[in-house]
Amino acid sequence: MHRVKVKVVEDALDANETIARANRDDFDRAGVTVVNFMGAPGAGKTALLERVIGELGVSAGVLEGDVQGSLDADRLASLHVPVVQLQTSQGFGGECHLDANMVRSALPSLQLDPLDLLVIENVGNLVCPAEFRVGEDARVMVSSVTEGEDKPLKYPLMFRACELVVLNKIDLLPYVDFDVEKFLARLETVHPGVACLQVSARTGEGMEAWREWLARLPGRRMVSA
Amino acid sequence: MHRVKVKVVEDALDANETIARANRDDFDRAGVTVVNFMGAPGAGKTALLERVIGELGVSAGVLEGDVQGSLDADRLASLHVPVVQLQTSQGFGGECHLDANMVRSALPSLQLDPLDLLVIENVGNLVCPAEFRVGEDARVMVSSVTEGEDKPLKYPLMFRACELVVLNKIDLLPYVDFDVEKFLARLETVHPGVACLQVSARTGEGMEAWREWLARLPGRRMVSA
Repeated sequence: MHRVKVKVVEDALDANETIARANRDDFDRAGVTVVNFMGAPGAGKTALLERVIGELGVSAGVLEGDVQGSLDADRLASLHVPVVQLQTSQGFGGECHLDANMVRSALPSLQLDPLDLLVIENVGNLVCPAEFRVGEDARVMVSSVTEGEDKPLKYPLMFRACELVVLNKIDLLPYVDFDVEKFLARLETVHPGVACLQVSARTGEGMEAWREWLARLPGRRMVSA
Repeated sequence: MHRVKVKVVEDALDANETIARANRDDFDRAGVTVVNFMGAPGAGKTALLERVIGELGVSAGVLEGDVQGSLDADRLASLHVPVVQLQTSQGFGGECHLDANMVRSALPSLQLDPLDLLVIENVGNLVCPAEFRVGEDARVMVSSVTEGEDKPLKYPLMFRACELVVLNKIDLLPYVDFDVEKFLARLETVHPGVACLQVSARTGEGMEAWREWLARLPGRRMVSA
């Protein structure tokens, strides 16, 4: 029974990998750099995009993954960047992550050619999004200080499967029991050398570094290709 | 392809339902009332248990679900209540929820007979835990004010599939943009009439009501049986 399950899962991940490569080919043809943006529910993913997506100096679009509703897509659409909503509720009670096929199904709704950067905001979850590549160039995960400094140890795959960790809501540090040094040490344990930006989408602290990281991504990718 | 997937998922949920009933039979035989305790990563599930689990006046135990590690189980074990750790990382990169079979695999490690109440702390996630019953009598979900007032609309199944919503971290209300009335109105939309306790595990506010809700559960169940 367990072996059957493992086999089904392996097949699903293999199929996902194939479709992710097809997505990647399309992204390459269009010359668009793609970020898979992950984090727990309420970590501040949409708020972090709201803050910078309209001011990157590169042409950016957003693919917004949600179980249901279009609250986040509506927030971002008001910033006059192209936003496509992708709902996962068709699945069963709702898929807890985006996979390559879901992203692929949204591509016809997106004009890729004019874009330099596409940010794919994943479903809020610290487990499964890390297991499914969608054809992205880079993965960013958001962790907020209100979630606790133990999170890298509890969800190591997520903290390992990313090129950048954004530590959000640092404006709340005086009011919560969160030791930044302890968090960084634990992060270093599970993902040595990964970059970490300490920010607050609410107060704007650290937004310049975050904006620059995103804005430079298309260029960085071209350099490394 | 989509139909095959739906069929696989339906079969999985059917199998889960069968095992959940077997768990329930075992719980009934032992006379233990079982709570499935759910919420996002960092919502404060473990902190809420730490606050009251040793002072319920009924004999309580905890089954602690985590992707990896035993940080939460260690915290609770120090309170001298029986705690069994259940790690989901054997699955593939780690299961994002507990299912009935995982709970069943842990039952031999638990002495059910002496217990009045068993709290099963699920994996931090607002999607899949709501889809898998594990044989519980009641489901409680924790939402924290730092996650935002939009969560009932974004994860409606989770907010619907519970008998109690605990709104945690209300000590942070002065420092975040969270409108309690708006949250309650949205909760009422997706789950009319559900009870909601406003609490802070950090300051202790609302802990008496939370303690009483848990302590009375075995009695309430006996009344309704």
